[in-house]
Amino acid sequence: MRMRNKPWAESYLREHGDIVDLDGVHQQRVSSWFDKEQPIHIEIGSGMGKYITSLAALNPNINYVAIERDKNVMIRVLDKVLDQKLKNIKLLCNDAVILNEYFAPHEVSRLYLNFSDPWPKTRHAKRRLTNHRFLTIYKQILHPEGELHFKTDNRGLFAYSLESMSQFGMYFTKINLNLHQEDEGDNIPTEYEFKFAEKGSRIYRMEAKFHQDFTHMMNKD
Amino acid sequence: MRMRNKPWAESYLREHGDIVDLDGVHQQRVSSWFDKEQPIHIEIGSGMGKYITSLAALNPNINYVAIERDKNVMIRVLDKVLDQKLKNIKLLCNDAVILNEYFAPHEVSRLYLNFSDPWPKTRHAKRRLTNHRFLTIYKQILHPEGELHFKTDNRGLFAYSLESMSQFGMYFTKINLNLHQEDEGDNIPTEYEFKFAEKGSRIYRMEAKFHQDFTHMMNKD
Repeated sequence: MRMRNKPWAESYLREHGDIVDLDGVHQQRVSSWFDKEQPIHIEIGSGMGKYITSLAALNPNINYVAIERDKNVMIRVLDKVLDQKLKNIKLLCNDAVILNEYFAPHEVSRLYLNFSDPWPKTRHAKRRLTNHRFLTIYKQILHPEGELHFKTDNRGLFAYSLESMSQFGMYFTKINLNLHQEDEGDNIPTEYEFKFAEKGSRIYRMEAKFHQDFTHMMNKD
Repeated sequence: MRMRNKPWAESYLREHGDIVDLDGVHQQRVSSWFDKEQPIHIEIGSGMGKYITSLAALNPNINYVAIERDKNVMIRVLDKVLDQKLKNIKLLCNDAVILNEYFAPHEVSRLYLNFSDPWPKTRHAKRRLTNHRFLTIYKQILHPEGELHFKTDNRGLFAYSLESMSQFGMYFTKINLNLHQEDEGDNIPTEYEFKFAEKGSRIYRMEAKFHQDFTHMMNKD
């Protein structure tokens, strides 16, 4: 998501160094930055932050990390964190490809991707957040029983992700091919999702895990 | 697919013992039943047989086996084989669960499932042709580089299959979440598919393979 450049964004984010990390000062120790030691769930590409701040308000026993590269977008997440006085959420302004510099191996219990940029051109496939380049990072930081939850309205990106993730040795524990017709009442829509659902677009969703080893894989049922 | 019972079906099929196996006489030696030794592709649940007979006519260098339990349906496949004088197709009237009694390990190069019965009730999940019970059989008879091609209009069955197959250690090499919008001109529609496409229903399609071992899996790109 791109927003108009706001020259004051950086200074606003810097004023809240207790919530926002702009310079990687919390690399290798994000978990100790939180008040309480509890499971960590992260969202890559948080956009305006409605999704992750809703979760943080609902689940005080989880620590949330919103990851977003664009400072002009990140300020909207910070607004929500401050408005709701949320204590269990931190904001990282950085690229997903260096996430393993922030988190210890297997430290993350859940990873959310919501309406990620589809990068529809084949030559840009490496930029998609479900490309093997990123899955390698996710596998490093996710707990062996950790889950990746992914939601998109983009049919091509969803098909690509099913291929890429299964080829990498991931498996799917829940798939919705038309979420808004199948939702059991526990879906939290993002800002973006509202717009698309109103237009009648299908929303695709999956929950996935990494096969840990071949023996484990063959015994699954 | 269920058809009205035709008392003459069995005798008609028996008249053509050179094409149809009703009693398992070709168990363990289906491949030697064909005139030529060439790759074997099979379809489980062939229905009226338009799909597999079209393929057999297009690809004389492949041996096809149509598997269908219902004799009243199988006669429609036989009609097509006789009309077109196809030499590279055989018909097995039996259940998919005993396919490993017909084929040697890894003997089959490709397996087609088209518009299989969705068995929508959870308590019938074991009857779905992408349940682990069947995947175990497919893995035995499919060549390590063999492919499973699956097409359905049933959203629930497709989602279930993506879950079940990935959990079993399969991966997807091609997925279409709306085939008739994405088809590149090489789709052969079944009788059933024609009806649904006309009504505007989405057709889902995948191509899948078995991960052979963990090392292999991690090196994929």
